[in-house]
Amino acid sequence: MNIFPDAKILEVNLSTSIITTRLLSGEIYRLYPGGSALGVYLLLQEMEPENDALSPANTLIFTVSPLTGLPISGSSRLNITAKGPLTGAIGDSQSGGFFPAHLKLNGWDAVVFRGRAERPVYLYINGDEAVLRDAQNVWGKVTGEAEAIIRTEIGVNDLEIAQIGPGGENLVKYACIINQCTRANGRTGMGAVMGSKNLKAVVLKKGKPTKAYDVDKFKELATSVKTRLVENEAVAGLGKYGTDGDLEGFNNEGFLATNNWTAGHLVEGANNITGTTMYETILKNRDTCFACAVRCKRVVEIPGVVDPLYGGPEYETCAAFGSYCGVTDLETVALCNQLCNMYGLDTISCGATIAFAMECYEKGLITREDTDGLELNFGNHRALPILVEKIAKREGFGRLLAEGSLRAALQIGQDAIELSISVKGLELPAHMPQFKPAVGLIYAVNSFGADHQSSEHDGFLVLPPDSRERQRLAQIGIWKGYDNSYELDAEKVRFALASQKYFSILDSLCLCQFVWGPSWELYGPTDLIDLCKYGLGWDTSLYELMLVGERRINMMRYFNAKAGFTKEDDQLPKRLFEAFNDGPSKGVQLDKAAFEKAKERYYELAGWDTKTGSPTEATLIGLSLDWLLEKDLTWS
Amino acid sequence: MNIFPDAKILEVNLSTSIITTRLLSGEIYRLYPGGSALGVYLLLQEMEPENDALSPANTLIFTVSPLTGLPISGSSRLNITAKGPLTGAIGDSQSGGFFPAHLKLNGWDAVVFRGRAERPVYLYINGDEAVLRDAQNVWGKVTGEAEAIIRTEIGVNDLEIAQIGPGGENLVKYACIINQCTRANGRTGMGAVMGSKNLKAVVLKKGKPTKAYDVDKFKELATSVKTRLVENEAVAGLGKYGTDGDLEGFNNEGFLATNNWTAGHLVEGANNITGTTMYETILKNRDTCFACAVRCKRVVEIPGVVDPLYGGPEYETCAAFGSYCGVTDLETVALCNQLCNMYGLDTISCGATIAFAMECYEKGLITREDTDGLELNFGNHRALPILVEKIAKREGFGRLLAEGSLRAALQIGQDAIELSISVKGLELPAHMPQFKPAVGLIYAVNSFGADHQSSEHDGFLVLPPDSRERQRLAQIGIWKGYDNSYELDAEKVRFALASQKYFSILDSLCLCQFVWGPSWELYGPTDLIDLCKYGLGWDTSLYELMLVGERRINMMRYFNAKAGFTKEDDQLPKRLFEAFNDGPSKGVQLDKAAFEKAKERYYELAGWDTKTGSPTEATLIGLSLDWLLEKDLTWS
Repeated sequence: MNIFPDAKILEVNLSTSIITTRLLSGEIYRLYPGGSALGVYLLLQEMEPENDALSPANTLIFTVSPLTGLPISGSSRLNITAKGPLTGAIGDSQSGGFFPAHLKLNGWDAVVFRGRAERPVYLYINGDEAVLRDAQNVWGKVTGEAEAIIRTEIGVNDLEIAQIGPGGENLVKYACIINQCTRANGRTGMGAVMGSKNLKAVVLKKGKPTKAYDVDKFKELATSVKTRLVENEAVAGLGKYGTDGDLEGFNNEGFLATNNWTAGHLVEGANNITGTTMYETILKNRDTCFACAVRCKRVVEIPGVVDPLYGGPEYETCAAFGSYCGVTDLETVALCNQLCNMYGLDTISCGATIAFAMECYEKGLITREDTDGLELNFGNHRALPILVEKIAKREGFGRLLAEGSLRAALQIGQDAIELSISVKGLELPAHMPQFKPAVGLIYAVNSFGADHQSSEHDGFLVLPPDSRERQRLAQIGIWKGYDNSYELDAEKVRFALASQKYFSILDSLCLCQFVWGPSWELYGPTDLIDLCKYGLGWDTSLYELMLVGERRINMMRYFNAKAGFTKEDDQLPKRLFEAFNDGPSKGVQLDKAAFEKAKERYYELAGWDTKTGSPTEATLIGLSLDWLLEKDLTWS
Repeated sequence: MNIFPDAKILEVNLSTSIITTRLLSGEIYRLYPGGSALGVYLLLQEMEPENDALSPANTLIFTVSPLTGLPISGSSRLNITAKGPLTGAIGDSQSGGFFPAHLKLNGWDAVVFRGRAERPVYLYINGDEAVLRDAQNVWGKVTGEAEAIIRTEIGVNDLEIAQIGPGGENLVKYACIINQCTRANGRTGMGAVMGSKNLKAVVLKKGKPTKAYDVDKFKELATSVKTRLVENEAVAGLGKYGTDGDLEGFNNEGFLATNNWTAGHLVEGANNITGTTMYETILKNRDTCFACAVRCKRVVEIPGVVDPLYGGPEYETCAAFGSYCGVTDLETVALCNQLCNMYGLDTISCGATIAFAMECYEKGLITREDTDGLELNFGNHRALPILVEKIAKREGFGRLLAEGSLRAALQIGQDAIELSISVKGLELPAHMPQFKPAVGLIYAVNSFGADHQSSEHDGFLVLPPDSRERQRLAQIGIWKGYDNSYELDAEKVRFALASQKYFSILDSLCLCQFVWGPSWELYGPTDLIDLCKYGLGWDTSLYELMLVGERRINMMRYFNAKAGFTKEDDQLPKRLFEAFNDGPSKGVQLDKAAFEKAKERYYELAGWDTKTGSPTEATLIGLSLDWLLEKDLTWS
């Protein structure tokens, strides 16, 4: 009988340079079985949430899961947790690539970074050994250069490197952590936390392949997963056109966030930045993550302008530097993507903050005096790469924009605040709540701010009742179908919450949503349960896993409450409640009253106090989170 | 892609003799997929809960599930729902045998009986055909005779018959419904409801075998289930010694309810009524339910005294007519079992009510004048069969006892009330909460009164953490182990609630706990999910099923609230909070303060208002029970 494995945790005190190892017993690990759940669990024990995100009191935590490193599609994801500097709330982000698999293949479930190094360092892990090395040579270098220097320094080629660029070093509030120069733990500014710790990189010697618990059954499952992926039309589309394959449809329907969300479509030129166009023009290659059959990652090249080393833009990047800014120039989008990957910036927050600045400029809230002479009208694609560099280097106008749109707005003045299209300070990704109100609800209530990968999207409820996706949703308790996705009733709230729990499982087990999410017609909980069973000998159930998902959501919310967040912080930008003036979605808006009611309902269904928006004592106890109460008995 | 099947419901209006058929769409059926969940769902639409249980306004509902009739162990269970005459709360009971399978094999998922027949009738179902037939010939007859007469009347031998005996006809408040003269829908007085409707029996022509959705995989599963059952030591014990195999151990540990629960063990003679003794003396045969490999049902014979036609006593019966009454005479126990099966009485409530009367007698609250001259001291085994007959016929002292212990106590006087060992008027089964506090918690909060089959028993938490049972409990979210089972902390409350949900699934899918419950080291949710998938093509998850379980529990509780029940009705008998005076469990008691705290916690975790003890609006909405709110918007 297999008992859940212990978690092996590497603890790095950057202030003292002391590195230790500890085991978290499998009995506890099973409650927080990796990834984001484990990250938040450890963070709650590491720090008081009220401490400053960029102080040495913050703790930066890399986590994978017991499943990571197994050779199956969609299983190599790295989670990074810390208090977020952009929001002051819990920070949380995931990336793919090969780094995640190899962290686990070196034997580690988590790496915890405490304190702050006196001088820049990087951590080098080779199996059980871990050492801090001087990073003076790479500090200030963009990611590609730093990678090359580190490889030379260590003298080994089979390395995986996760690092910050100058953006993180300069504490840009939405700096990210990049591995393979292409995979970003993008959101919530984890790169700034890493920068504040004078930690340039985490470098791994590649690990050795691992064996599944039940080798034969696992192989059967992995082959079946691969076969289904390869044969599936939708996955083929994702592989061929990348996530940007979605842009065209969204624009046609009028739900492509445009000109800082003042419109729902690009009147002209959208075709320039679609996945199809990218595929037909600048796409050089399709990149993959460890053991994955999908190959959704773009690799683009524009000789003399864009280097394939830095991959290629996702849909979100095409929207943020494209439609958000009224820009339809693919070269600009690709270049900005490259710059973000070089400097280590989150493409969404970066593009969105520039779009915000453009609207401020057009509205006269800022002028050329503020912008270092740049004309910041929507559509001025030339300004974009310039601004990205300024932000990363915190030069001139970039100093303001490096703070993110909300903090920038607070400096610009009262009128600018509603132009920051953000929740809790985290800029909205490019899925419009007018079209996907359940996603909008999650934007509002999600602990780390507006996130489009924390729940299922409304559109799946519009599919026929006998579709596999709908049957899968039934497995998480959702039955009702819709004629269109705009409705926001009680069932939608249940859908939002239940699918949030499900996605929360994936972020904890460190599985890719594109393979393991219910979005595709291929996979579902059944495969997930099989994966745990054959991969790990973990005879689990979707019920146990949904508790994991719910536990993570509630630990995050608890963290936020301790950091001073209340339900007042669960607001969507005012703009979303105003009808579109024209285009295919003319007249569509998010109904304010329905939304507020749904939010109230969400609190109730989530077991959160409707006055404070925080988990009730009963909710925490119901999720076996009693230890949070023991820690603070005044909690209620 | 298989969509959940529609439920085919036979609706019998006894007042008008009109019989109709209706389909409940699979989309709704999936939310209440059979058995008790379907029963309560239908009942809530049929009647106002405040109506009298024995009035024509009550509705009697037989249900099975889409899985019923498939040839696999532990799958032939019949659920019966109506408002309960003993409690005034929701009534609910299950039985096994062949009747359940054949109801479904005739094509029916549910039979709903409304109103009251002018004269006694029985329903005869032959496939799609259903007719009401005159029951004058069998009214007043004991079950064995009635079966024989009906067989002759219909002229067909392959019949299954569920019926009431004179007990139900005479509206004994704990009358049961018996099929095969041996399988009782025993608890909560469903037989009295049937009697009040002048409905003597439901007679089925045996149906034709059905096919599983995936014949090969299902066969594989059924064979695997059978093999595991047959090879398992614990199951072999159950098969060999029946449920009464437990009695010896309970007595040795001091937790065999004795002398109306004033003691925890029989000082002498327990050995006479153990499963082993029964096996070695009067056991003639082991009976089975449809397609089941366990064969746990006893068939006993004592020539001239006890007829094998009526089976043999379960553990509960041995306790109720044995230790509850201070009786250690196996012949008496077997005879009382037979009488209950002949007259159609619940053996637990019947024995417990007699035990209650014995204590009243010993305490001088009643005298020989009241008891028709019977000396009702504990241990007077001769009085037992006499009283059972008197009760069934409502003769003399039996008229009082036919009301159950609580109603009898109210008539006897104030001092008698605390001698009624019941919750909501339903007498406690023979699992002592001092030893199993989580079970005691469920006794208190369960909507239909004290029931030992509504949750898992505490003892499983004492098993080693790597035991399969404990791993199975982990699948429903329960981790913590205990040194002994007496503790009652937050984890025990979670355990009680989670296992209650799981058992609630089994009562809804009409599966036997002895095969499909987590009690055995053999089975778990994984097999249950496979059963749904291969048996029915229903690709479900444990999460979806746990929602079903929770939905049923909350519908029941909603019914109760409408019938006037509050948290004040969730009381355990005072006696349980007093320490045992002697014996192996000397000094052990249920801690009152801990119990009250646990109950409060249970309400919170269940999503019930701690002031009223009723489901909150949010809880109902979270379970897709919005329709209850639409029905009554004043609910809160």
